[in-house]
Amino acid sequence: MPTPTRKAQPRKRPGGRSARVRSAVLRATLEELAAVGYASFSLESVAARAGVNKTTVYRRWGNREQLILDAMLERGSERVPIPDTGSLRQDLLELATAIADSITAPEVEATARAAASIGDPDSLLVDAARRFWETRLKMAREIVERAIARGELSPGTDPAAMIEALIGPIYFRLLMTREPLDKPFVEKLVDVVAG
Amino acid sequence: MPTPTRKAQPRKRPGGRSARVRSAVLRATLEELAAVGYASFSLESVAARAGVNKTTVYRRWGNREQLILDAMLERGSERVPIPDTGSLRQDLLELATAIADSITAPEVEATARAAASIGDPDSLLVDAARRFWETRLKMAREIVERAIARGELSPGTDPAAMIEALIGPIYFRLLMTREPLDKPFVEKLVDVVAG
Repeated sequence: MPTPTRKAQPRKRPGGRSARVRSAVLRATLEELAAVGYASFSLESVAARAGVNKTTVYRRWGNREQLILDAMLERGSERVPIPDTGSLRQDLLELATAIADSITAPEVEATARAAASIGDPDSLLVDAARRFWETRLKMAREIVERAIARGELSPGTDPAAMIEALIGPIYFRLLMTREPLDKPFVEKLVDVVAG
Repeated sequence: MPTPTRKAQPRKRPGGRSARVRSAVLRATLEELAAVGYASFSLESVAARAGVNKTTVYRRWGNREQLILDAMLERGSERVPIPDTGSLRQDLLELATAIADSITAPEVEATARAAASIGDPDSLLVDAARRFWETRLKMAREIVERAIARGELSPGTDPAAMIEALIGPIYFRLLMTREPLDKPFVEKLVDVVAG
């Protein structure tokens, strides 16, 4: 028996079955990425983990890059706030601590590894990562710009270089040396960067 | 007709066919990694690129981790030297410049991306990367230790944090933000780190 004809795109209403499927697939995407890594990531496994048919995933996202990108953008709304305590050292400490805490979450770590792994500069994921960092670093530079305005730093200080000297080593430990992102590390790093 | 019986492991003599095959396969491994990335890397493609039978590659290396590890260790003998100019700023500038130049070589970049992509802490490649960085960072810390001994830096300076604040941002640009590793970037970074 055919289902009754419906009006106005019933499949796209918020909170409907389509939205639940999307949410389940995007959550499964980050879980699967955290579990097996980008090299072994497949749309089939994501579909199985989400409990949906694999053709649903293929039809809607097409390939793993598009799927991971969508999951990252969905997740990207949970942002690390930029502190403004009135002290350069305290702002840098809070920012570095928040980033170190955030990237040790398995799904965040997994997306960072996936983005880092791609050599092709034209990749969708690389482009998304580039835009994400452009925005984030610009926001973080305000910490340094405010310290210059307060007279805490000399006007010759380069805000971009100072923020990269803070954030870079956190990702370097995560991705390369695998040393712990603990409190003593973050404090010593801030000591070097804040001078 | 059977080949004549040979004495004393003829296949392993230096410069022999076996050594030529090994060298060709390891070179092809880094080329293939640079061309397609870790996620799409396969022993079949390496064998095709090296012009050898794929069973040779499987028999000798078994899996892609072992193969990439062997290629990295072979290549790892070409090391970035640790400068000792008598000036902290100049030492840091030379070290950062050498690292930035080195990691923009396609095969070095590809091995960094492969190592960064692996989430499993028990992976052979992760273990090799961890040991590589332990040795390298210890050597680089001597730059800071010498500056402390010369009185250029206060004895309270943390050599490890200073070296990570220098090297971390270079890998952060390569792996995450994809901004250029050019001379102005390196100079501004040294300004921040050397204070």
